[in-house]
Amino acid sequence: MSPGPTRRARIVGTGLIGTSVGLALRAAGWQVSLQDPSPTAVALARDLGAGTIDDETPDVVVVAAPPDVAAGVVVEQLDRWPDAVVTDVASVKGAIASGVAALAGPGSSQRYVGSHPMAGRERSGAVAGRPDLFEGRAWVVVPMPDSTPQAVETVRALARAARGEVVVMTAEEHDAAVAAVSHVPQVMATLTAARLRDRDEHAVGLAGQGLRDVTRIAASDPQLWTQILAGNAAGVREVLLDVQSDLAAALDALGALADEAATPHHHTPERDAPGARAVLARLLDDGNRGRARVPGKHGGAPTAYDVVTVVIPDEPGSLGRLFAEVGDAGINIEDLHLEHAVGHPVALAEVSVLPATSDRLRTHLQSTGWRIH
Amino acid sequence: MSPGPTRRARIVGTGLIGTSVGLALRAAGWQVSLQDPSPTAVALARDLGAGTIDDETPDVVVVAAPPDVAAGVVVEQLDRWPDAVVTDVASVKGAIASGVAALAGPGSSQRYVGSHPMAGRERSGAVAGRPDLFEGRAWVVVPMPDSTPQAVETVRALARAARGEVVVMTAEEHDAAVAAVSHVPQVMATLTAARLRDRDEHAVGLAGQGLRDVTRIAASDPQLWTQILAGNAAGVREVLLDVQSDLAAALDALGALADEAATPHHHTPERDAPGARAVLARLLDDGNRGRARVPGKHGGAPTAYDVVTVVIPDEPGSLGRLFAEVGDAGINIEDLHLEHAVGHPVALAEVSVLPATSDRLRTHLQSTGWRIH
Repeated sequence: MSPGPTRRARIVGTGLIGTSVGLALRAAGWQVSLQDPSPTAVALARDLGAGTIDDETPDVVVVAAPPDVAAGVVVEQLDRWPDAVVTDVASVKGAIASGVAALAGPGSSQRYVGSHPMAGRERSGAVAGRPDLFEGRAWVVVPMPDSTPQAVETVRALARAARGEVVVMTAEEHDAAVAAVSHVPQVMATLTAARLRDRDEHAVGLAGQGLRDVTRIAASDPQLWTQILAGNAAGVREVLLDVQSDLAAALDALGALADEAATPHHHTPERDAPGARAVLARLLDDGNRGRARVPGKHGGAPTAYDVVTVVIPDEPGSLGRLFAEVGDAGINIEDLHLEHAVGHPVALAEVSVLPATSDRLRTHLQSTGWRIH
Repeated sequence: MSPGPTRRARIVGTGLIGTSVGLALRAAGWQVSLQDPSPTAVALARDLGAGTIDDETPDVVVVAAPPDVAAGVVVEQLDRWPDAVVTDVASVKGAIASGVAALAGPGSSQRYVGSHPMAGRERSGAVAGRPDLFEGRAWVVVPMPDSTPQAVETVRALARAARGEVVVMTAEEHDAAVAAVSHVPQVMATLTAARLRDRDEHAVGLAGQGLRDVTRIAASDPQLWTQILAGNAAGVREVLLDVQSDLAAALDALGALADEAATPHHHTPERDAPGARAVLARLLDDGNRGRARVPGKHGGAPTAYDVVTVVIPDEPGSLGRLFAEVGDAGINIEDLHLEHAVGHPVALAEVSVLPATSDRLRTHLQSTGWRIH
């Protein structure tokens, strides 16, 4: 490894993430070599400024290959560059770590340290790459049990150079964490949306913002997500078994309540299902507590904002005028959500602000002619 | 029932929905009488302009009581006002219809027609009431099998006067529809969030926008939702049984994949679990199809928008300047989402626009100094 400030990285796989790593490292003054099985993909990444196509000896190799082949590519790179540290960027870590441990030559897995930059885009491929893709996002660094301290520090330096926020975890911690905060939510959104596939038009016409939020990520790419779920099968399964158990309890409670409702004179105490209501209330309360732990902006604890709902004509410039007014009042918008009314060319802007400022905002907007909903 | 244009309504229950109905009907020129078990609540609704406190004979009574007592209150009102049509506004309909059928005197259920205005707020009580709460939202009208045509027309006229968009459904259709688009999504968000309750800080620290979206409604009021789920227990259970079946198939597939990964030399074909990947891919694809049916703005079919992501300094006025620029370019913002970067005082605004305008917007914003992410 080079002792000086200039580092030499090699990117293997020039899709969205690989190209973005190259662009970010170049912006930080690193030398970057590029490699991809597709000559077109690697030439495109080079033309976009992500690096050069050569065989310079690297200090660190970044394997940005699909999860199902990443372990094999990591081992190839460990063999090819016997003095380099090798990392990968796949969103599952345990499967790749055990693949590397099983396949790598003696001692060479000491030079492997996993990575998972928590960044992505709705587009894929080199052309979607951005030098600021990792800016301010968590970049999980996952040492192997036998990774050398120097190898870990090299990957930390790489993540910092790409402007990620370094978080160190074991592969097990990482996989359990992303199962709960990313993979299981994907499955739950998918399961919810799947129930709408065959609903009639009138039924889905009653959908509101709650359904839109819960099912947004159900639009994700099935092929990529099959690989991700397969790569973290044990971790996802463990969390989903707990979901299955909660769901079974809810179904028992709903069954008892449905029987109660179907029974004539169902208000006699011996036929009531009081325990069933307690099961549902406890589950809803657990959901409240879990939701309260989801971080808000800047990764901090969630803040309760006040929501001011403003009626907006659905025409160019309306939002601009609204936000100019909010800015004039010296108030910072913490979050914003637009909701469009069924059958009306009018939108509602739900403006989240700090509670201390919401009354002032309402007064200011009303005095300047806005309709507060 | 009055043949003239002025109608007389009585609101029983002056919480958020009852008060909002009163305000909306008053704005439409109706006479409104108010009633509530709480003298404070009814006086507050009167002072807010929702109606008067008197015993004028109504043409139509709106029961805005909690779901678990609504049927009893409907029957009381049918008895008290033998010439009036009675409706309720609860978010479950079958349980209330059968309660009314069981408890009402001979023939009087002909004057009952259910309602479900699809509107609500994050706040409750008369003080949160708004005359425009129902504007442009679906208002489901649910006739009983023996409701008279005049009774149905009276409730339709009420919904139109309150500026709702009338949709007529049977109680069974309504309950099945809201189970799929509202009650089951609530349960799924709750089940997902409940798994975060006991996660450690590092794990929830990796949460991104996907998790925030899926779990947003998990913050809903447990007491109200226990009543709603209990009131539609059979409908919710039917959809959740299908979810349970999909989840069991996913768990089997994940179990096979976890075994495959735990087996040394797992790439030998006889130990592979190819069927397992197909199960996950098919489920993810079903989720794609279901999500595609969720209506976008104005209740129409979802439109695929292009997303332009702009870097915004997190300070008052930044969004105002951005939206002024977008307005200057003559481009309409179809949707907007703010994402805050972990550990950085910078936000990303994801601006959705019609695909035909996105390139022009990017060029315009870059030429005026904005950073496009």
